[in-house]
Amino acid sequence: MEIIVAEHSGLCYGVRRALTTARRTRRAKPGQVASLGDLIHNPRVVADLAAEGIGSVETPDEARSGTVIIRSHGVAPDVFRRLRRRKIDIVDATCPIVQNIQHLVEALARRGRQVVIVGHRDHPETRGLLGYSRGRGVVVEDAAQARELPSRKARAVVAQSTYDLEAFEAAVGALVGKTRELTVHNTICDSTRTRQRAAAELAGRVDTMFIVGGKRSSNTARLYEISERVQPRTFFIENAGEITPDMLRGARTIGISGGASTPPEAIREAVEAIEQSFERNPTRE
Amino acid sequence: MEIIVAEHSGLCYGVRRALTTARRTRRAKPGQVASLGDLIHNPRVVADLAAEGIGSVETPDEARSGTVIIRSHGVAPDVFRRLRRRKIDIVDATCPIVQNIQHLVEALARRGRQVVIVGHRDHPETRGLLGYSRGRGVVVEDAAQARELPSRKARAVVAQSTYDLEAFEAAVGALVGKTRELTVHNTICDSTRTRQRAAAELAGRVDTMFIVGGKRSSNTARLYEISERVQPRTFFIENAGEITPDMLRGARTIGISGGASTPPEAIREAVEAIEQSFERNPTRE
Repeated sequence: MEIIVAEHSGLCYGVRRALTTARRTRRAKPGQVASLGDLIHNPRVVADLAAEGIGSVETPDEARSGTVIIRSHGVAPDVFRRLRRRKIDIVDATCPIVQNIQHLVEALARRGRQVVIVGHRDHPETRGLLGYSRGRGVVVEDAAQARELPSRKARAVVAQSTYDLEAFEAAVGALVGKTRELTVHNTICDSTRTRQRAAAELAGRVDTMFIVGGKRSSNTARLYEISERVQPRTFFIENAGEITPDMLRGARTIGISGGASTPPEAIREAVEAIEQSFERNPTRE
Repeated sequence: MEIIVAEHSGLCYGVRRALTTARRTRRAKPGQVASLGDLIHNPRVVADLAAEGIGSVETPDEARSGTVIIRSHGVAPDVFRRLRRRKIDIVDATCPIVQNIQHLVEALARRGRQVVIVGHRDHPETRGLLGYSRGRGVVVEDAAQARELPSRKARAVVAQSTYDLEAFEAAVGALVGKTRELTVHNTICDSTRTRQRAAAELAGRVDTMFIVGGKRSSNTARLYEISERVQPRTFFIENAGEITPDMLRGARTIGISGGASTPPEAIREAVEAIEQSFERNPTRE
């Protein structure tokens, strides 16, 4: 039995940076320190943070005092305004890559362009990007939704930074027939692309694949879809405790990958759980 | 038995204009009048033109005197230069829609952009467009070829005016993963789009479909592919003489469409041939 952890799996730069920022803020600031929404789509890390005194609030109005950390996904400009109005101290941990997309959306909208954002409608990054579009933005999740847009002389299209390239390509393809001049900004971040490519590659050479990460993490869900396309025997688990002997039946080569919000411990624990399961029951035919 | 001729089938504006221009030129000019390459991808019309004294030459150097007509597909700037050097009188019947694409390719290339042209590599329009790209053009015929291009920060993409929208969409989709900022100019002309849509729609409600046109006509071949995707019982014929009783066996509703270079007579004759075949043998079960 062999266990292979995908290259480029686990925490991305933006999420690592947000975690560091949050902990540094906790040390530096008195009073309440909370992120706006869970800092990271991973219940276990969220619990660790809460134990360290970094809580979370659901809405800007819930923050009564102290410091609010804007997580890596970023937020719409209106959220900053609402926090400032309430004299809340803001620490902005928006991923710099997402910030670039926000500025791009704003610049395109200022030039009068309709901006199509290909992303999950309810994902905080997408909602944030939409907030920068000055009312000229429209979100589509896939080619079918793109096909429903009316014809236009010109429009621009960007992607949620952690979206699946294949879905973005298909949505862009659908926009081509609807747009005379379409400017496509492929804003899927390198870290996402590299992670997705590595997971697909690994899924192709193992007989069982585990994707480890929070069920609410959009990019982890995409990673699961990508892996499952290549290797139908792919399991999406939130933590090592979910691994059952059934999942490992007949497995000889096992691949593991994790999303941008999956901490290294979670992957390490999955590896250990698989090893222990095999030690208990070496022949799983 | 019912025969339905597709709306928007047959000669497009650009080809009709080139034919009118050629005949007007023949009346106005003494000496040799020849098109550079067949004026239209239809052997029958080419023969008619020859009988009227409008011949064709294969290369600029073949033109020794008189007038050369540039056909609707257009040519590279270099061809104009070579003809001028030989003091040949030039009548330019390039389709105005193609001329717009030529100017677009030139403008994009002048701004330093790589220009991907999605079209048939050997099609005269595509070769002409490539000539306007100042060495920055590259032709791809489909998504597979687009996928082989190296990654780039920015590039632009245009289509041969008579290309299939679905193939263009797929090629653009493939470029998305290779390009940070991709400007997509959907230069497929309205006439092509309307014709393709009408043929697909008709193919969906008949049991037998005939696509009439020259075998060398790129847009007619595309029309055949589009129809055949919807109605596998599609026949590509150059003229009415090719219609056999076998093709009509069991047919109850028959559709007919023709490409941008298919003269109305060719479609009329196909209708007549089918009618006569049914009169000779009314029950074709």
